[in-house]
Amino acid sequence: MADANETLDQLTVNTIRTLCMDAVQKANSGHPGAPMGLAPAAYVLFKRFLKQNPANPSWIDRDRFVLSGGHCSSLLYSMLYLFGHGLKLDDLKEFRQWGSKTPGHPEYGDTPGVETTTGPLGQGIANAVGMAIAERHLAARFNKEGRELINHHTYAMCGDGDLMEGVAMEAISMAGHLGLGKLILIWDDNSITIEGKTDISVTENTKAKFEAMNWHVVEVADGNDLAAIEKAIQAGKDAVGRPTLIKLTTHIAYGSPNKQDSSDAHGAPLGEDEIKLVKKFYGVPEDKTFYVPEEVLENTRKALAFGEGFENDWQEIFNVYKGEYPEEAGLFVDAISGFLTQGWDKEIPVFKPEDGPVATRAASGQVLNAIAKNLPVLMGGSADLAPSNKTYLSCSDEFQKEAWGGRNIRFGVREHAMGAIMTGMYLHSGIRPYGGTFLVFADYMRGAIRVATLMKLPLIYVFTHDSVAVGEDGPTHQPVEHLASLRAIPGLNVIRPADANETAMAWQKALTTVDAPTALILSRQKLPTLDMSYRDGDAGYGAYTVKDYGLKADMLLIATGSEVHICVEAAQILENEHNIKASVVSMPSWELFENAPAPYKDRILPPALTKRMAVEAGIAMGWEKYVGSEGKIISIDRFGASAPGGTVLKEFGFSAENIVKNVLEM
Amino acid sequence: MADANETLDQLTVNTIRTLCMDAVQKANSGHPGAPMGLAPAAYVLFKRFLKQNPANPSWIDRDRFVLSGGHCSSLLYSMLYLFGHGLKLDDLKEFRQWGSKTPGHPEYGDTPGVETTTGPLGQGIANAVGMAIAERHLAARFNKEGRELINHHTYAMCGDGDLMEGVAMEAISMAGHLGLGKLILIWDDNSITIEGKTDISVTENTKAKFEAMNWHVVEVADGNDLAAIEKAIQAGKDAVGRPTLIKLTTHIAYGSPNKQDSSDAHGAPLGEDEIKLVKKFYGVPEDKTFYVPEEVLENTRKALAFGEGFENDWQEIFNVYKGEYPEEAGLFVDAISGFLTQGWDKEIPVFKPEDGPVATRAASGQVLNAIAKNLPVLMGGSADLAPSNKTYLSCSDEFQKEAWGGRNIRFGVREHAMGAIMTGMYLHSGIRPYGGTFLVFADYMRGAIRVATLMKLPLIYVFTHDSVAVGEDGPTHQPVEHLASLRAIPGLNVIRPADANETAMAWQKALTTVDAPTALILSRQKLPTLDMSYRDGDAGYGAYTVKDYGLKADMLLIATGSEVHICVEAAQILENEHNIKASVVSMPSWELFENAPAPYKDRILPPALTKRMAVEAGIAMGWEKYVGSEGKIISIDRFGASAPGGTVLKEFGFSAENIVKNVLEM
Repeated sequence: MADANETLDQLTVNTIRTLCMDAVQKANSGHPGAPMGLAPAAYVLFKRFLKQNPANPSWIDRDRFVLSGGHCSSLLYSMLYLFGHGLKLDDLKEFRQWGSKTPGHPEYGDTPGVETTTGPLGQGIANAVGMAIAERHLAARFNKEGRELINHHTYAMCGDGDLMEGVAMEAISMAGHLGLGKLILIWDDNSITIEGKTDISVTENTKAKFEAMNWHVVEVADGNDLAAIEKAIQAGKDAVGRPTLIKLTTHIAYGSPNKQDSSDAHGAPLGEDEIKLVKKFYGVPEDKTFYVPEEVLENTRKALAFGEGFENDWQEIFNVYKGEYPEEAGLFVDAISGFLTQGWDKEIPVFKPEDGPVATRAASGQVLNAIAKNLPVLMGGSADLAPSNKTYLSCSDEFQKEAWGGRNIRFGVREHAMGAIMTGMYLHSGIRPYGGTFLVFADYMRGAIRVATLMKLPLIYVFTHDSVAVGEDGPTHQPVEHLASLRAIPGLNVIRPADANETAMAWQKALTTVDAPTALILSRQKLPTLDMSYRDGDAGYGAYTVKDYGLKADMLLIATGSEVHICVEAAQILENEHNIKASVVSMPSWELFENAPAPYKDRILPPALTKRMAVEAGIAMGWEKYVGSEGKIISIDRFGASAPGGTVLKEFGFSAENIVKNVLEM
Repeated sequence: MADANETLDQLTVNTIRTLCMDAVQKANSGHPGAPMGLAPAAYVLFKRFLKQNPANPSWIDRDRFVLSGGHCSSLLYSMLYLFGHGLKLDDLKEFRQWGSKTPGHPEYGDTPGVETTTGPLGQGIANAVGMAIAERHLAARFNKEGRELINHHTYAMCGDGDLMEGVAMEAISMAGHLGLGKLILIWDDNSITIEGKTDISVTENTKAKFEAMNWHVVEVADGNDLAAIEKAIQAGKDAVGRPTLIKLTTHIAYGSPNKQDSSDAHGAPLGEDEIKLVKKFYGVPEDKTFYVPEEVLENTRKALAFGEGFENDWQEIFNVYKGEYPEEAGLFVDAISGFLTQGWDKEIPVFKPEDGPVATRAASGQVLNAIAKNLPVLMGGSADLAPSNKTYLSCSDEFQKEAWGGRNIRFGVREHAMGAIMTGMYLHSGIRPYGGTFLVFADYMRGAIRVATLMKLPLIYVFTHDSVAVGEDGPTHQPVEHLASLRAIPGLNVIRPADANETAMAWQKALTTVDAPTALILSRQKLPTLDMSYRDGDAGYGAYTVKDYGLKADMLLIATGSEVHICVEAAQILENEHNIKASVVSMPSWELFENAPAPYKDRILPPALTKRMAVEAGIAMGWEKYVGSEGKIISIDRFGASAPGGTVLKEFGFSAENIVKNVLEM
């Protein structure tokens, strides 16, 4: 009997491998080698461990599985097909084709069962850390004695490349610090990278390195040994205090007589002839493609019945829980459905001009805290700049090892991991994450921002110290190109409020948006609160007039953030001293404005009013769109300089006097 | 006698500390705490080890010193003043002021003795790794038995924040792999970060972690123990086979009764009252500011005589070397002066249309190899994508441990470190580094690109796979916003050639530029070689006409890279079928074009010709500047999709037919 089972196991593993080879070959594009090496581990994981209900990919208490090496997508798709997650064999045949459910790298949203978009290396590991953080936090928040709503594992698979990436090292360090014992990372130690053997670029003791970072490490010497793999994963589950790395020694393109253990097998189809040789080696029909023996499908599809059982068991617990803890159950449903709890915004302050100037980062801190009190899903932190970013929640504790109920995450000086961890936290569901750093260091986390935007996740990035007004810290800390470079990312909402009330609007927009991340761009320095008596329009549309001459206006001054106030001042001088009527448009967000109704847009930027000047303490790029051919842009098209912020702004021409001078020259 | 020396040492250390406190206090801005903790180590390093000639900060065989925690700039400036590197006491008084030599963070070029710009954490460590790589390579290349032209150490100081950054971990892993034994990193282990104690975010065994990465680790339990520091640095020098980490336990704001060991001392002046208390503790005059006892200056300025001796000794060796090895000596002078060896460009191929289409990445590989044969300073590699980026030099070997003469660097999957290591290699002088990855992963190394551009270093980034034409790998691997986001960095030259000959031009421009990095943006797919018979102008000016109707033109089609060919095709259809004369402008580089003479610009983009269309397989942002208010932009303002490249391009409207259709609609 054991033999029969072993034979079926082996046949299933080889079927996974042939599906991967065939999909890549048919697409004439892709990465067959790593999936062939990883198939046994994937099989053991899906067959013996993964607590999922294939019929309901969004069941909240499922185990998460992240394929960090996204180029192995054919492996994931084969598993999702075999184990009944909704993919069909025809989908595998459409691998990497326009509009298919099986794109080149796993794309969140395109394919049921794909938990996150991966491909850019290292980030998947950080996503998994984020999921594991979310799991521990929600468990701490909702679980009751004998009523565990949240209790699952996060599994990730990665390759050598993932482990070389800094973002992975940051996240791994953090996972060890936090003691995320339910995180299990399977490392495909196949000794091959694109350029050749891994030892041309890395020769370290990975086991010792992980242990130094408080990880538990298990080694599987033969990646084809199903029993050893099973034992290793179980050991990972048993090590509850530390995350586990499984060092799985495999052979890239296992079974390929001419390509095994060679980087040739990494990123190109094996070729029809070679595939036949491999199939022969596996003992499966050489001339069949996409061949799935019936007993294999029967074997794997048992996951459907198991999965239904898992979720039913959970549902029973939840039904009891609902009766016993109705309030918590309501909040739980709110959390996992992404619903903003009733009254979440009721304490958002309204700021008055007479209360004096406020830095928008300070206003942001106030607004964030006012919301967080009433919105328990809001959770985040800063990359070691909380006192500067004003991201600390006074209503909650720190999120730490064995104190996972806290909502203040100490990300450390790990910007890139912070970004990718936020992504994982959101993808887990149940949490609305935010994360802060200086705007200039958005560069460090850009990889993660991009993928989150691609996935349309409503994350909130809190970027403070938003211009050369940062002052003394100098050009390394003064953003100039960052507004433009963030606006460049398609689908990312960038909001740079001019005052405290626009900041409150920005947080409201960010939280009510469901399909895009928001970057809040906030000032270090204090800014006046705008007097709304001269207003036309609404900040929530991305642009509105803060000093409005209506049809009498001679020209438009368009600005964002701190520069709005300089324009208001300039407009006053223009009227008083030069009889020029310049309406001032505050334009906190290009993206929101682009989505405003056309008549609204024409009202704020009347097409006939072609005398326009844009004023922003950053590069000019893109403003041409709003000022037109006759317009002028006051910008900073060079790096900044170290000096007190006021001095720097003046030297770069950001003064009412210089605006007036430029208007008169127009 | 020993006592007198010890007293003088201690007085000097305390003088360094008071200079730092006073500079920060006078500026009312800065970071006093870490410099106070690090002063003893800095003193021991500068006094007992650093082989430099303060009178000549560019002496090639000097030890390099990198302050990775750039916020400790007051420490560096104090050392540069005290040890006679050209800074004056008045410069310290101008700390963080407009136009001073002592900006908030160390800025390369602003201050003699500052080896690199630091501030964005982690990068300084990678810069140091780059310098140590350059040292080993040049030593391998030029040193002869008994005639060592290059034989120096690279020292770096870093804080906890640096070691949390991914870029640092990447570089540290690589330094261990390469066995860079002459690299010594001093870690200011003061247990404090901005948010509080370091253990809120990191609790790992750093010693074991470094040892796992092939580093030698020495611990100094008391950062005030000058003898122990000296012993540790010597131990680092003695460990010739591995880089050394010195774990130096210090107290932030040492001696401050109310702020020592507190994060309050990190980023704000201590305050006048507290400073007096600290000075009292140090036993120095409480009421004097910027006070330097004469004996201290005498003690430190001895470095001038020592330094002159160091360089004279070296010069003697070099004089003999010149006689014995005249050819090598000539190449050595070429290398360290940045001079391009005579004939460096003589083998650059000229590509002919009839030889068939060539991917610009392939052309780049040919051109690079043709140049490298005759330009030995050219050295680089790829972040594990050499076969795709075509960055391997067939004329040389791999750069590996104990085989440092090779010019092919295996960066591994470490994009950010690659960027910052290139920076360090160039800063060392003697090398013209290049580094490749996919364009989409420019995001991962953006932090390093920014700082290199700020420093105006002529690095060469080889970014291949430049658009959605990448195809099957899908949106994670298809750049759309990257051209715009790179163009956004002030001073970076971005060149996207349309064919093989433009690629050759791009390499020539990149290598002959001395004050800016160049990003080469290259296609994965094959592109025709343009027929130059219809040309007007010169690609080297950033834009030229490849299909020219001169004054008879009805309109302009402006494109870059692969889209130029689509426009040429469309122009042919427009003439043949619609009698519309559309001149086609290939515009490989906005930045080069902006620097072209005004009459040239008007010739290529005649102001009167306002019917213009820009075509680029990326976001529209910024093209408004060239097409004007009446113009149109064919762009991709969303993420890409996974499918064969040709399909993706067509679906996004990049076909001659669609261009024609849009022209007719205009």
